[in-house]
Amino acid sequence: MKAATPKAKLYEQVAERLNGAITAGTLRPGERLPSVRELSTRERVSVSTVLQAYLQLESLGIIETRPQSGHYVRRRERLLPAEPQVSRPANTAYTVSVSALLGRMYRAVNDARVVPLGAASLAPELLPVQRLNRELALLSREEGEAAVNYDMPPGCPELRRQLARRALEWGGALGPDAFITTCGASEAVHLSLMAVAKTGDTIAIESPAYYGALQSIESLGLRALEIPSHPRYGLELEALQAALDKRRVAAVLIVPTFSNPLGSCMPEEHRQRLVAMLAERDVPLIEDDLYGDLYFGPARPRPCKAFDTEGRVLMCGSFSKTLAPGYRVGWVAPGRYHERVELLKFAQTVATPSLPQLAIARFLQNDGYDRHLRGLRRRLAAQMEQMREAIAEHFPEGTCVTRPTGGSLLWVEMPRTVDALTLHARALEAGISVAPGPIFSAQPQRYSHFIRLNCGNPWSPRIEAAVATLGCLARSLA
Amino acid sequence: MKAATPKAKLYEQVAERLNGAITAGTLRPGERLPSVRELSTRERVSVSTVLQAYLQLESLGIIETRPQSGHYVRRRERLLPAEPQVSRPANTAYTVSVSALLGRMYRAVNDARVVPLGAASLAPELLPVQRLNRELALLSREEGEAAVNYDMPPGCPELRRQLARRALEWGGALGPDAFITTCGASEAVHLSLMAVAKTGDTIAIESPAYYGALQSIESLGLRALEIPSHPRYGLELEALQAALDKRRVAAVLIVPTFSNPLGSCMPEEHRQRLVAMLAERDVPLIEDDLYGDLYFGPARPRPCKAFDTEGRVLMCGSFSKTLAPGYRVGWVAPGRYHERVELLKFAQTVATPSLPQLAIARFLQNDGYDRHLRGLRRRLAAQMEQMREAIAEHFPEGTCVTRPTGGSLLWVEMPRTVDALTLHARALEAGISVAPGPIFSAQPQRYSHFIRLNCGNPWSPRIEAAVATLGCLARSLA
Repeated sequence: MKAATPKAKLYEQVAERLNGAITAGTLRPGERLPSVRELSTRERVSVSTVLQAYLQLESLGIIETRPQSGHYVRRRERLLPAEPQVSRPANTAYTVSVSALLGRMYRAVNDARVVPLGAASLAPELLPVQRLNRELALLSREEGEAAVNYDMPPGCPELRRQLARRALEWGGALGPDAFITTCGASEAVHLSLMAVAKTGDTIAIESPAYYGALQSIESLGLRALEIPSHPRYGLELEALQAALDKRRVAAVLIVPTFSNPLGSCMPEEHRQRLVAMLAERDVPLIEDDLYGDLYFGPARPRPCKAFDTEGRVLMCGSFSKTLAPGYRVGWVAPGRYHERVELLKFAQTVATPSLPQLAIARFLQNDGYDRHLRGLRRRLAAQMEQMREAIAEHFPEGTCVTRPTGGSLLWVEMPRTVDALTLHARALEAGISVAPGPIFSAQPQRYSHFIRLNCGNPWSPRIEAAVATLGCLARSLA
Repeated sequence: MKAATPKAKLYEQVAERLNGAITAGTLRPGERLPSVRELSTRERVSVSTVLQAYLQLESLGIIETRPQSGHYVRRRERLLPAEPQVSRPANTAYTVSVSALLGRMYRAVNDARVVPLGAASLAPELLPVQRLNRELALLSREEGEAAVNYDMPPGCPELRRQLARRALEWGGALGPDAFITTCGASEAVHLSLMAVAKTGDTIAIESPAYYGALQSIESLGLRALEIPSHPRYGLELEALQAALDKRRVAAVLIVPTFSNPLGSCMPEEHRQRLVAMLAERDVPLIEDDLYGDLYFGPARPRPCKAFDTEGRVLMCGSFSKTLAPGYRVGWVAPGRYHERVELLKFAQTVATPSLPQLAIARFLQNDGYDRHLRGLRRRLAAQMEQMREAIAEHFPEGTCVTRPTGGSLLWVEMPRTVDALTLHARALEAGISVAPGPIFSAQPQRYSHFIRLNCGNPWSPRIEAAVATLGCLARSLA
């Protein structure tokens, strides 16, 4: 929590101050923190604000709760690594050319011999596999013909109703008709790009950016303009504004909530400003909210779509990171581009698989989903913390790592001499898959000493050993 | 069977001669045809060749078999309408702009109140719904985690093995590794286009062409060059050759087996010449074989891929027209473009749904699929024949209609004064969905007096009444 919070919420400010005291050594590992009531009086904030602040610090692994005793500064073997700096990509729009490295990485997901720290996949044991499969089995009997027939766009009515119901939770005034279901969020983003841009157009993205987005941009003949991005707060608005002033940008495509690979979460006030800035210039925003439900803090960050009064935000999501990646069910709420996106959906894949949509809709009807999410978030937060500590222990001196407040990904900056592509190759020989930095940029040579690590697996001796091996390989390359 | 067969097979030549005799009135409705043995002696061909010829004429509704009695010229209320002429599109490459008419059409598929003669969907009662759903229910229990997890490209190994096994039947030397599974054939075609063409490139297609292909071409910023096409034999090779001599064409995209909407089937000898012609010029061929298994004649037409020795044919298929459209399982065998297509698949939709792939693979393991296909082909042939007769009865004088030997689609040319878009709108008001001609071309005003009718529904009073209503509307517009 090194960088300053831009207009942070009250609880974030409280957390920030406490963290400052811990970083400065005022509060030492093992020391007891003030009681909630004490701090509430001292900071002149409500008890619930203090509780939220403590929850955030706990989710970040900075403090810990001891039952019937209170909150304590967490003991560590050694200090956590620092965070990486704000990215500084070249101020040029590039045609994208990401290499076939990707192939090796995604194939590793289905290869049980490889430790899957590359692709952003969750271990099936974190997912409600049995309940989902049971729903599906039941539905395949109940639904009969509907299970086998096309479910034409905009897609399954009950699933869209559930999506609308969930949108209420973050204040989204979206009815069932606001949604179109898709084959995962990837298709949603791809269709959104097709709907708002034409060949040769420039798309502003974060830097580093999700390689899937870069691939989509490449395959559609678009150009990627990478905007400097903060490891904790995401896209830098001043940089975006400067870019918009200088050239025509057809759309902005970002993952504001737990971006991939940075894990950054854009502050609410930034989201408001971003939406306003783009409305002024009539530039659509493609918001990939794939990880939105995986927050470690007390509340779901509100998506940019929450501040969109003119239908200029195309919000994309899916159930691949929370329920069943293999079901391939995602969605888009494309605002004013609805008709165009729906037609493109029909042209590209005709329909979304019927039965998986029905099974997920059924799952969302009861409160099993929220219960599942609570458990999943806790486990991901713990796994990420363990991964961060293992990196601190095994990676070379000078390694920096992000501190996401949600999602399942860590972005690791190694010393400049460590070549990520070489590390990727050596790691694969050792049976470990990692995502090398260069696939997260359209610029050649960019992020050549970074890797992304997936924390989607329960911590185990096998994972620990894999991180130790990675660290050893990185040291040998340093 | 008006047009001359180019280098037809022996049985086709026999069928052609018989048909000529029937058309000329030499053989009259109700008359008995020569016995198989007689004809075999007379024509100096084998008994099996005569049987194939009779089978073809039967599938076209020209003759009928009476058990224990022999073959007879079929009685008709009135003569079947003539076939439409070879198409003569303008010799110009157009940017594609197909209207939102499509939306109304595909939405009708899930609207039980509308008679679905528009989209090319099969009635679920023609599909093995229960058996498929049972497989799926069983698999969802057996497979557990694999059912929920990503099945990364190239996709389900067992399904690819089954695809390779089926390819053996038409002489395809394709191993399981030759295939990539996709979300239906639409995605397969879309990915193939992305793999071989870049923005601004020209794609040669049939005319009329499937609107989904036109949509893909439009959305990728490509240009469509429509090539004259024969109502029975498909793409005219001389016209294609002339076009290739004149301009750079990035790829040819056709449905050689029961094209959509023409229902034409390219003769084998044409396929060989086409593959050779494109090999000479190093132009890839995207072969959409979606309807390949739905032949009414004695044998499956061999795909162009069967003649491709250099991996220049990207063959696409799916199970949407034979098993379960709602499962969204298709495939592509992209030859030398394999790596690129696989990467694009990952970028666009990441993976194909896991469980539907497994369920179809399981279904293909036993011979239930072939048995199902035999029944389906018989029913489709009968439905198409009934539709053709109803058109003859109800549509205005001068209406022409195609005579496909497979698939489920009829292409209907009405008198020039009947505007298909008006007919489409009036029909929808009357609760009937049809596909209006203009959506099958990138050229404005083209096929404005044509409609495509879907024969994928069991014949019923409701369907019959709908065709009568259509005919009545068409007469009122004529």
